Amino acid sequence: MNENHPSVPARDDESTARGISRRHFLKRSTGLAGAAAVAAVPVAQAADGVPAWMQTPGKPLSTGGAPSRFEAKTGRIVTAGYGAIAPGTGSSRTPLHLLEGTITPSAFHFERHHNGVPDIDPAQHQLLIHGLVQRPLAFSLEALARYPMVSRTCFVECSGNSSGNTQPKPPQANVAVIHGLLSVSEWTGVPLGLLLDEAGVTPGADWLLAEGADAAAMSRSVPLTKAYEDAIVALYQNGERIRPEQGYPMRLLLPGWEGNMNVKWLRRLKVTQGPTHTKDETSKYSDPLPDGRAEQFTFLQEVKSVITRPAGADRLPGAGWYEITGLAWSGRGRIRRVEVSTDGGATWREATLQGPVLAKSATRFRLGWQWDGQRTVLQSRATDEHGYVQPTRAVWQARYAPTMRYHNNTIQSWEVAANGSISNVYL
Amino acid sequence: MNENHPSVPARDDESTARGISRRHFLKRSTGLAGAAAVAAVPVAQAADGVPAWMQTPGKPLSTGGAPSRFEAKTGRIVTAGYGAIAPGTGSSRTPLHLLEGTITPSAFHFERHHNGVPDIDPAQHQLLIHGLVQRPLAFSLEALARYPMVSRTCFVECSGNSSGNTQPKPPQANVAVIHGLLSVSEWTGVPLGLLLDEAGVTPGADWLLAEGADAAAMSRSVPLTKAYEDAIVALYQNGERIRPEQGYPMRLLLPGWEGNMNVKWLRRLKVTQGPTHTKDETSKYSDPLPDGRAEQFTFLQEVKSVITRPAGADRLPGAGWYEITGLAWSGRGRIRRVEVSTDGGATWREATLQGPVLAKSATRFRLGWQWDGQRTVLQSRATDEHGYVQPTRAVWQARYAPTMRYHNNTIQSWEVAANGSISNVYL
Repeated sequence: MNENHPSVPARDDESTARGISRRHFLKRSTGLAGAAAVAAVPVAQAADGVPAWMQTPGKPLSTGGAPSRFEAKTGRIVTAGYGAIAPGTGSSRTPLHLLEGTITPSAFHFERHHNGVPDIDPAQHQLLIHGLVQRPLAFSLEALARYPMVSRTCFVECSGNSSGNTQPKPPQANVAVIHGLLSVSEWTGVPLGLLLDEAGVTPGADWLLAEGADAAAMSRSVPLTKAYEDAIVALYQNGERIRPEQGYPMRLLLPGWEGNMNVKWLRRLKVTQGPTHTKDETSKYSDPLPDGRAEQFTFLQEVKSVITRPAGADRLPGAGWYEITGLAWSGRGRIRRVEVSTDGGATWREATLQGPVLAKSATRFRLGWQWDGQRTVLQSRATDEHGYVQPTRAVWQARYAPTMRYHNNTIQSWEVAANGSISNVYL
Repeated sequence: MNENHPSVPARDDESTARGISRRHFLKRSTGLAGAAAVAAVPVAQAADGVPAWMQTPGKPLSTGGAPSRFEAKTGRIVTAGYGAIAPGTGSSRTPLHLLEGTITPSAFHFERHHNGVPDIDPAQHQLLIHGLVQRPLAFSLEALARYPMVSRTCFVECSGNSSGNTQPKPPQANVAVIHGLLSVSEWTGVPLGLLLDEAGVTPGADWLLAEGADAAAMSRSVPLTKAYEDAIVALYQNGERIRPEQGYPMRLLLPGWEGNMNVKWLRRLKVTQGPTHTKDETSKYSDPLPDGRAEQFTFLQEVKSVITRPAGADRLPGAGWYEITGLAWSGRGRIRRVEVSTDGGATWREATLQGPVLAKSATRFRLGWQWDGQRTVLQSRATDEHGYVQPTRAVWQARYAPTMRYHNNTIQSWEVAANGSISNVYL
């Protein structure tokens, strides 16, 4: 293959970690290697001449940038507002169908608010640690800045994500509408255990109450074990101060646990014995079982994946080579494997995972696919490092009562019709 | 230590990879362990009552978010505009002094433009691959979307970054003004080698000419070896489409090489034999030597680090515990080690590196420091996985002519005065 490139050294001895090995790359992209140009146009047909924007000086330097005016379609999808009664109550979704890589731009991180986004003056905001502690303490932003920090790149997923697929008929919508209550950020802040040690947790304490400074005073109970394992009081999101919709000036971050527990606008941590049974964890966020009981405090977001392209509401222009790509994540740790089926689950192939594969973060997967133009169904199935495998819809449904809406981590099935249109189906 | 937490299991057997081990954490934060609260306020002195923003419903859901109005100070620093003649010629710098973690928000990625930011209609833009190829091809955005993609989280650094420190007297400014021509993004796009293979590079070809669609038609020569090693045609930045100031709708990404070569608004790749010697690589971006000759095509950004906090123009409120933190990076690969001196280079301690430590990306380092209130000098020194060590200013200066302004990767020295004010000094 290198006979065309006498100056290019043979690449088989190169580490794939340092870059893409071309041979491996082509091998992986089954169906692309040896094919003619997938979609490029011979130059005779290409546009000619110097474009208008090269004939005039461009825009000046600026203190802050914004997306191109041609990308105005990329925005959160506001799917529930409960009308004029409470326009700040509901959710908006990350436009997964228009994004690539793994980081979610902070502007497009999903929202789930219980009474809107408070406009907090950071100079007036404090984090109180009280309850079963030796020294109740209040931390200003300035005080927290004096503590050591850590970063955690992880996903936050609403436990109600993908609940559309619990309905009797599959909703016909794009991947963002169905699965867009999922976002990934690099969060940076102070380890919660360090702050608790400053206050001095007293014997017998084993839970926390975490309360936000929104008008709903949203509050959840958190076991102290998690607080000491990997929780942080996050102050930064993707490098800058946390955005207002994600908890400015600070939020609780509990990597891998349901989004609601990552309390935004964090104002108070009360150390307790046992959980507090707040309104937010009794009226919501519990999981009904077939026998009439309900599971409570089911915090983990289990292993899951979804194909983001090609996906619901897309339309393939015709038979040929496509890259299937999507995201996989597990609240338990790292993704070990993502398998993709292009025949409705009859056979599975292992997708390539984009490194670094981080614990409790989302991992992008990719697999080349030669579509023959016939009707078929695309699926992805993730396995995490603990061996947990993403369940089918039937297996998951059997575990719960029909009213169950949370923690839906089932395999998504996208049907590709012969005309290329893609729809949501249950298999 | 766990006698206060009977419900918390002992943590020595837990993997630090899964989270912060509390004991290790406290051990590392020398001087903090066993101390009273660093900066928290006992609750008797804390603010009382329910804040105003909890007494009224918050703001509604939205399609896109923005930073808090209280963070308006966080913005790029426009340091050179060459007046009214060409307001789009010059640079603006990433506010490193106000950011945390490693990702640079796309809005604050540094700028270096040669004739402003073009306003490109993506439907009218094409990437042409021509020259010594078998099949000249033009790729639309739609065409590129049909190819397999990869992500590379890496730094882009202007080769003129830190040139202020080549002046005879150290400039008195914050870390962003001196070192802010450095940013980190997750870039996603199509491997360049794949597109070159589509066009079919002919025997004897060994370089590329890459040209941008700005009014300066900025162009640089790139060896084909790099094109096949890890170059991509980047279409996405931190999840979303590349921002206009970073090359919308596409840029060349050459991980670890000087920023200027990562040609923005990429419109043309001409495969050549030997470099083209464009105006942008002869009038600029070459390195004068003591003997009157100049090194050309010095592409690598060598190993470097800088303390971002506490740093120039900061003022420490008084003696006590501080976390020293900053960024380290190398165009050759991964950072192996960052050492920090708090006594002007007399002794060095190894800082903690925040994982994942990625090749050709920036790695954040942290080290606890107990300041005794006396005058001292803070420094950081990075070593990469190939054993390259960041040089002192004296060693670096001896290599070049006094007019050398590029590739300044020397150790930064921050002097802390007894009154806590921090200034830039040469040691």
